[in-house]
Amino acid sequence: MSIFFGVDYYPEHWPRERWETDASMMREMGLQVARLGEFSWARFEPRMGEFHFEWLDEAIEILGKNGISTVLGTPTAAPPAWIIEQNPEILPVDSDGLVKSFGGRHHDCQSNPAYREHVGRLVTAMAGHYRDNPDVIGWQIDNELGNSHENLCMCDSCKAHFQQWLKKKYKNVETLNREWGTCFWSQDYDKFEQVPVPRKTPTAHNPSLLLDWKRFCSDLIVDFQDFQVDIIREICPHHFITHNMMGLYDKTNYFDLGRNLDFASNDQYPTGYYFESGEGQPDFEISACLDFIRGVKKKNFWMMELEAGPTGGAIIGRTPRPGQLRLWTMHCVAHGADTIVYFRWRTCTVGTEQYWHGILPHSGIPGRRYEELKKTIAEMVPVMEDIHGVVTKAQVAVLFSYDQDWAFQIQPHHPELSYVDQIKKYYDGFYKRNVLMDFISEKDDFSAYRLVIAPLQILMTPELEEKFENYVSNGGNLVLTMRTGVKNINSVCELDRELPGNLGRLSGLVIRDYDCLLDMEVEVEWKNGRERGKARKWCDIVTLKGAEVLAEYKEEFYKDTPAITVNGFGKGKAFYIATEPDGPLMDRLADYLISELSLPNWGASPDGVELTVRNGRKNDYMFAINHTNKAQSLKIDQTWRPVSPGCQGMVREYGVEIFARAAREDKNGQ
Amino acid sequence: MSIFFGVDYYPEHWPRERWETDASMMREMGLQVARLGEFSWARFEPRMGEFHFEWLDEAIEILGKNGISTVLGTPTAAPPAWIIEQNPEILPVDSDGLVKSFGGRHHDCQSNPAYREHVGRLVTAMAGHYRDNPDVIGWQIDNELGNSHENLCMCDSCKAHFQQWLKKKYKNVETLNREWGTCFWSQDYDKFEQVPVPRKTPTAHNPSLLLDWKRFCSDLIVDFQDFQVDIIREICPHHFITHNMMGLYDKTNYFDLGRNLDFASNDQYPTGYYFESGEGQPDFEISACLDFIRGVKKKNFWMMELEAGPTGGAIIGRTPRPGQLRLWTMHCVAHGADTIVYFRWRTCTVGTEQYWHGILPHSGIPGRRYEELKKTIAEMVPVMEDIHGVVTKAQVAVLFSYDQDWAFQIQPHHPELSYVDQIKKYYDGFYKRNVLMDFISEKDDFSAYRLVIAPLQILMTPELEEKFENYVSNGGNLVLTMRTGVKNINSVCELDRELPGNLGRLSGLVIRDYDCLLDMEVEVEWKNGRERGKARKWCDIVTLKGAEVLAEYKEEFYKDTPAITVNGFGKGKAFYIATEPDGPLMDRLADYLISELSLPNWGASPDGVELTVRNGRKNDYMFAINHTNKAQSLKIDQTWRPVSPGCQGMVREYGVEIFARAAREDKNGQ
Amino acid sequence: MSIFFGVDYYPEHWPRERWETDASMMREMGLQVARLGEFSWARFEPRMGEFHFEWLDEAIEILGKNGISTVLGTPTAAPPAWIIEQNPEILPVDSDGLVKSFGGRHHDCQSNPAYREHVGRLVTAMAGHYRDNPDVIGWQIDNELGNSHENLCMCDSCKAHFQQWLKKKYKNVETLNREWGTCFWSQDYDKFEQVPVPRKTPTAHNPSLLLDWKRFCSDLIVDFQDFQVDIIREICPHHFITHNMMGLYDKTNYFDLGRNLDFASNDQYPTGYYFESGEGQPDFEISACLDFIRGVKKKNFWMMELEAGPTGGAIIGRTPRPGQLRLWTMHCVAHGADTIVYFRWRTCTVGTEQYWHGILPHSGIPGRRYEELKKTIAEMVPVMEDIHGVVTKAQVAVLFSYDQDWAFQIQPHHPELSYVDQIKKYYDGFYKRNVLMDFISEKDDFSAYRLVIAPLQILMTPELEEKFENYVSNGGNLVLTMRTGVKNINSVCELDRELPGNLGRLSGLVIRDYDCLLDMEVEVEWKNGRERGKARKWCDIVTLKGAEVLAEYKEEFYKDTPAITVNGFGKGKAFYIATEPDGPLMDRLADYLISELSLPNWGASPDGVELTVRNGRKNDYMFAINHTNKAQSLKIDQTWRPVSPGCQGMVREYGVEIFARAAREDKNGQ
Repeated sequence: MSIFFGVDYYPEHWPRERWETDASMMREMGLQVARLGEFSWARFEPRMGEFHFEWLDEAIEILGKNGISTVLGTPTAAPPAWIIEQNPEILPVDSDGLVKSFGGRHHDCQSNPAYREHVGRLVTAMAGHYRDNPDVIGWQIDNELGNSHENLCMCDSCKAHFQQWLKKKYKNVETLNREWGTCFWSQDYDKFEQVPVPRKTPTAHNPSLLLDWKRFCSDLIVDFQDFQVDIIREICPHHFITHNMMGLYDKTNYFDLGRNLDFASNDQYPTGYYFESGEGQPDFEISACLDFIRGVKKKNFWMMELEAGPTGGAIIGRTPRPGQLRLWTMHCVAHGADTIVYFRWRTCTVGTEQYWHGILPHSGIPGRRYEELKKTIAEMVPVMEDIHGVVTKAQVAVLFSYDQDWAFQIQPHHPELSYVDQIKKYYDGFYKRNVLMDFISEKDDFSAYRLVIAPLQILMTPELEEKFENYVSNGGNLVLTMRTGVKNINSVCELDRELPGNLGRLSGLVIRDYDCLLDMEVEVEWKNGRERGKARKWCDIVTLKGAEVLAEYKEEFYKDTPAITVNGFGKGKAFYIATEPDGPLMDRLADYLISELSLPNWGASPDGVELTVRNGRKNDYMFAINHTNKAQSLKIDQTWRPVSPGCQGMVREYGVEIFARAAREDKNGQ
Repeated sequence: MSIFFGVDYYPEHWPRERWETDASMMREMGLQVARLGEFSWARFEPRMGEFHFEWLDEAIEILGKNGISTVLGTPTAAPPAWIIEQNPEILPVDSDGLVKSFGGRHHDCQSNPAYREHVGRLVTAMAGHYRDNPDVIGWQIDNELGNSHENLCMCDSCKAHFQQWLKKKYKNVETLNREWGTCFWSQDYDKFEQVPVPRKTPTAHNPSLLLDWKRFCSDLIVDFQDFQVDIIREICPHHFITHNMMGLYDKTNYFDLGRNLDFASNDQYPTGYYFESGEGQPDFEISACLDFIRGVKKKNFWMMELEAGPTGGAIIGRTPRPGQLRLWTMHCVAHGADTIVYFRWRTCTVGTEQYWHGILPHSGIPGRRYEELKKTIAEMVPVMEDIHGVVTKAQVAVLFSYDQDWAFQIQPHHPELSYVDQIKKYYDGFYKRNVLMDFISEKDDFSAYRLVIAPLQILMTPELEEKFENYVSNGGNLVLTMRTGVKNINSVCELDRELPGNLGRLSGLVIRDYDCLLDMEVEVEWKNGRERGKARKWCDIVTLKGAEVLAEYKEEFYKDTPAITVNGFGKGKAFYIATEPDGPLMDRLADYLISELSLPNWGASPDGVELTVRNGRKNDYMFAINHTNKAQSLKIDQTWRPVSPGCQGMVREYGVEIFARAAREDKNGQ
Repeated sequence: MSIFFGVDYYPEHWPRERWETDASMMREMGLQVARLGEFSWARFEPRMGEFHFEWLDEAIEILGKNGISTVLGTPTAAPPAWIIEQNPEILPVDSDGLVKSFGGRHHDCQSNPAYREHVGRLVTAMAGHYRDNPDVIGWQIDNELGNSHENLCMCDSCKAHFQQWLKKKYKNVETLNREWGTCFWSQDYDKFEQVPVPRKTPTAHNPSLLLDWKRFCSDLIVDFQDFQVDIIREICPHHFITHNMMGLYDKTNYFDLGRNLDFASNDQYPTGYYFESGEGQPDFEISACLDFIRGVKKKNFWMMELEAGPTGGAIIGRTPRPGQLRLWTMHCVAHGADTIVYFRWRTCTVGTEQYWHGILPHSGIPGRRYEELKKTIAEMVPVMEDIHGVVTKAQVAVLFSYDQDWAFQIQPHHPELSYVDQIKKYYDGFYKRNVLMDFISEKDDFSAYRLVIAPLQILMTPELEEKFENYVSNGGNLVLTMRTGVKNINSVCELDRELPGNLGRLSGLVIRDYDCLLDMEVEVEWKNGRERGKARKWCDIVTLKGAEVLAEYKEEFYKDTPAITVNGFGKGKAFYIATEPDGPLMDRLADYLISELSLPNWGASPDGVELTVRNGRKNDYMFAINHTNKAQSLKIDQTWRPVSPGCQGMVREYGVEIFARAAREDKNGQ
């Protein structure tokens, strides 16, 4: 039997005499796996080289006796105090040059050679100890790599590693000078050793340096993970290895991070972390995260941490409403999770996260959350048995590029413009219409998709230009937007050619002027002369070179010039969206593309009610998910029959209704 | 004759030839005491060991000849430049590890041994010099201890002292590990020397460490004061010693700070310091501060600095309106001040506080403020002669706990929730109804009070549980609120028992779920079905175990569950307020409790008009204080006769009317 | 022929083979000068003492062949990496004590002796190389001195230089102690070496120290410039020397900075830098900047950088609307620019400012901006030939004082009060009525002006008091305001005299009380009893000593006391504005003064349409400038004839109409 449900468990937080109780309560709930050991270095190795796994062995055994397998986390996200005492140079340094203190987690520098040595010793010992434990099935490396390291570390070790990284990339410093354009502000380097890390400087750093710094930081994190992966693969070839990612968190390139993993995992806390809003994450954003994680390895994934109670540090989030734990579970499954691991078994009574709630409250007495999850598991197991391992494929793809993202982090153009936000806006336009989407990278094959949406392709290579052209000329449909083809891959603006560079041919237009919409919007009218919306943040001013106009600006000195165009190119079409469409305009655009390109979708649904399908071996399953706090009506095609009886055309607040129909042969989603 | 009025005076700021003028103007105004020497270290000891008190002797003599006694301030809040040059390690270090510069005041580390040596030498010399001066009557230690030291100091000396403090508290590091729960995030310590001060760390520190850090900082300040107290007591046993506190300023435990003092003093600047609002401090807040300071030593206190002109640093406050200086004087007296010392004699022409105005303007020419205070003093002296030394006792007590306060500073739960704010909200509910209140600590006797209000008792000990139970079972009435009994005294959540722990028995309920109201409110209905208000910030979700419902939530999934309950327990009652009541709900609650428990109060008065009473030897005095900028009508019980004639049922804007009646035997307030 | 138009050009940013193309396009456009070399140190001296000017020689020659002269910028605003590597102590230190990194520009300490040596060597070599180049006509020192050095540098070198500066000013430390009032907070110094730079301190520094620090920083910058000026003057006596200032940027005293220059230059980017608002700088503010720069040397100036495209760093500004480049050009000329140099030729493809657009886009293909400027140049040359070198003189002067400005930066009194803002408010009051204004310093001759406006004269000297008195008694008219005569020149409040000190005699009043209007306004009524406005931020409370009331407060306890007064004194009048007038009150005041003093003005115009005149040899030229985005009607006196035909009583959005009439003999403006 496959593993569908599990829990994150920290036996070291609880008295030994509670462990059996916990394990049997887990079993009764239907859990099959526990993640252990993730932050326990000080208990594994209280003194250098002196290892104590016996307590964990015992916990694993107790769980195993209750039918619960173990995934081990390497505890390298929190080096113990004795390591910091012995090698204080491990502490990370911020962009001011200030050393951060021991006392939270991630108080380490991932390039530091002393730290690597400690990590290597511990992981080798751990892998050796558990290679033959029958209850251990796999590993999670570290925890949420990149998290809490934001803007860290800029220590001397990182500086030396950055310079090495640059030397490897550019070979000689003259090339770096040329590629970065160091002639600006007299920044020519004589040797790599002169290149700074981007500590605070009067004014601002060269954007080419900043972009390479972000790439270096991502590569360093990947290297830090793979250093551990290599050790474990060698010792435990029969165990799987994964890592718990964070959806669209963008400090590390997850396509790279996923390369050496068996599958991707994800952590998701729908009510939020920092509580900018009590509402938590909007559902379209969570859906995008899940679809993105499915895209990392092009296959189904684990939820390694799914919220099971109010989140909280110094501030505490709203409590999950009745039904929400069930909803979040089904939401994840609907978007490609094969296994759901809840965070965490019991709310910890100590430490920084003592208000980050688990399934059980501090008291350890099962309550509302335990009961709801127990029922949910019972309800879901039959469905999961059928769908497990089957990947649902979309016909629309969103191109996600860390390079483009980082380029816009460095130079957002408009104060509110971000690449990820723009990706989400396009995603939401189609998501609201129940269109299934995949996320892909520039390196993936486009040809499987009827439509590829590629916003803000500001950094461009000849290879990617050619790939876009081939895709469209062979019948693909491509959405490009403002700020495409502006720069080369090292963030240097293109010389001697007009925007959007060679993609102007594909798009049938040229951009000779543009306008950043600070504190203003510009009216846009759809070609039918009736529907209107707003251009936001940026207007490319288009000169047509063959493209057809779909919408026009209706204000400013570029009144009556194109805002949205389409250009037939070979067997396909290239769309150019010269601005950020506001809600109504995005709606119009999505409707147009769905209808024009006959994109499959699961029909209309009330606002906040999502319809999505996962394919199974025997059946396809439609999940009708009501993300709102009101009951909503539901009209589902008659070909679908309710899996749970009693659905009367309504779905309750935070409710999910599941429908099934016989699986179609091609397993191709919509 | 006792001392009723005085002034803070800095002769060193003014030419020698002005001193006689100042002294005779003070005498004419009715002043009897001056505080001197508070920031004059560089003038006392311009070079190490070379003391110059002759100039101050002269000033004291001139004042003495005018009938003005002297209180000496030890000038240890501003070590001179030569000390910093000689021992730069005295400079304080912030949470980033940055050293603060000489140039303001409080540029010192209170744990630093070199600084202690300098302080000891100076204070010893000063005490020796003034022990027999007949014009010197007492001492103020340092100035507003804790002020400007916020988040300072985290230097190596403080780190060593913190580790010593922990060693003293926990004896061995295993106990610390267990009590702090260092198993979380792998923070076990091998020795106390590994424990960090809470400098900035990636993510956040362990809340147990943070709580102990706050206790250590408070203890250090107390120790720094008592180091001086001990020297002076030894040398000048016939002088009183006090310290100028800052109301509800919460960086130092004032109950501890007051322990070795003869009486507490307070500084109050009603128009404000940082001018978040031009309105200044609301009157209920000032009243709470005064009542609190009265509670520190359970006796009357001095105002050591009372605002006598616009306050100001870089920004200047609104000028006191005509009548306000009189009002503030009487307001302080009404709440228990026996002596009023105005800050300061004359607005300084130099330095950082050159816009912090005194009684006289920069010009030195008496104006509006001088005249108003002179009249006020003449008016007040007869009253003060009668009330001096008589403490008015309340029947309602507000429990104030620094531990609870600090616990909520570390983890506020809701972004706008603070312990002090919550205390003020309850205080205001009764204050608006002219109910006299005392502030007490957990260590005080509860039995003298008909009602004890104890909000947010998140940290709980068996002793306090028992004390609460005994108090109620013997006939006391206790208000507890949401977030009671959550943790032990070291900020570790209670294991294996439901909220609010043992106090659930007293309250007749159990809390199994709760909801942090981020960006939302929840409607609450009083049990009569008519009155409504809002639950704010947090809702405990109550399961009744015998308590009676007084009000219910009317929204969310906990609709129709209790928001406010009462439980009969022994001879008394325990009230549980499961949320923060908004204004209307707090009004309803206060009315209910006043009526239900027959709490004494001075009757109704218009908004912003306070009625409060001080007992005297011959008479009781009612102060009717109009804090508003409009004239207000006044209805006072006929048993009270106006002290100043001419009160015609009105009190002018910023006006005060005083009434008297023959004193009752028990001196027991209301 | 004189030089009217030029461009900032960076040949090192472009391939050698493009240079001829650029030069010939410049020539065709009508450009006559290029500024070169400004940030090219690493290219001039790639290794210490190894100079390479050959590439620049070639660029200068190519430009020269196209009739384009060269102004050389010394590249000292961006020392190259090898200098920082060799002398890392050059890096600047902020007020936290943190060292800033290489990687932007201005990563240097201007007091550092090692840096001075590098600068001296480079500038000497450069001047020697170019002294006889016939195409080189002058020099710009560094770039926007003071910019990006804000609050920098506080390193040990700067500390030592500050202490030297203080020693030079105060001779001995006792004088410093007395002048600064170090008796406050025990800050007496034994020696200059104890005086700190104002690094962050608990609480705040002495305002006298802060004021001297600002003076020192300004003097240091002037010294840094003049160090270079002296070298170039010595070697290249036939070249002019200038510096590109930044309007009312107030970190450096531009009167001092201009002292050794041949003329002042200015940089102006009307759409803005940091984009607090997309609207950019309001036109009255730009006008004030231009008039101020004209005042620095009392003569016409160069625009060394005038915006020629969207500005931008990480954020990009709105694109200039059609017509705006022409408008900005004419706006500058109308206010005294004799030469306009556009920033920059072509948008750079690399580096931090790759989005700071030039005339040409990244592509290098001339577009809308090139065409508009080319036409503008052709249109303007005939006008500029006539007006070149003729200075238009105003009859109203605004007194601008860096000392007063810095005093209010240190102590703003009210959170929104700033000296420069107050200057702008008065400027705008008259500017809106098309009154020509000069800016003058305290050292200038007042007698040439019918009205001198001198807001916020908080620091006062006997000399300035006397100068004001003489000016008025000889027939001048003077506007003084609240907060006049409060302090001596070292920021110490005046002792033993009432406000506004000796100026009370001139103004016929005394100030005994005042009120800072935090979160409030006070109604004011003009003496006619009809017009009303508001007092803002501050109210001086006036006691009349002979002055006549023009307006009164109508609220607060100072209701019916004077808000604006006038006092006849000798042959002139002194006006006292006791508050900040809001818009309607400022309008009333300006109307009153214009009418009462018969101040010349160019008549009424619609909101946002400016009428201003420049005198020429043959003609006077009136520029009617429509700063708004709507067409506006225009009524011009018949004595003026349109220079360009076709003006039909309208001026288009962002349009300018030029009119001419025969020049009058006195060349005296209005």
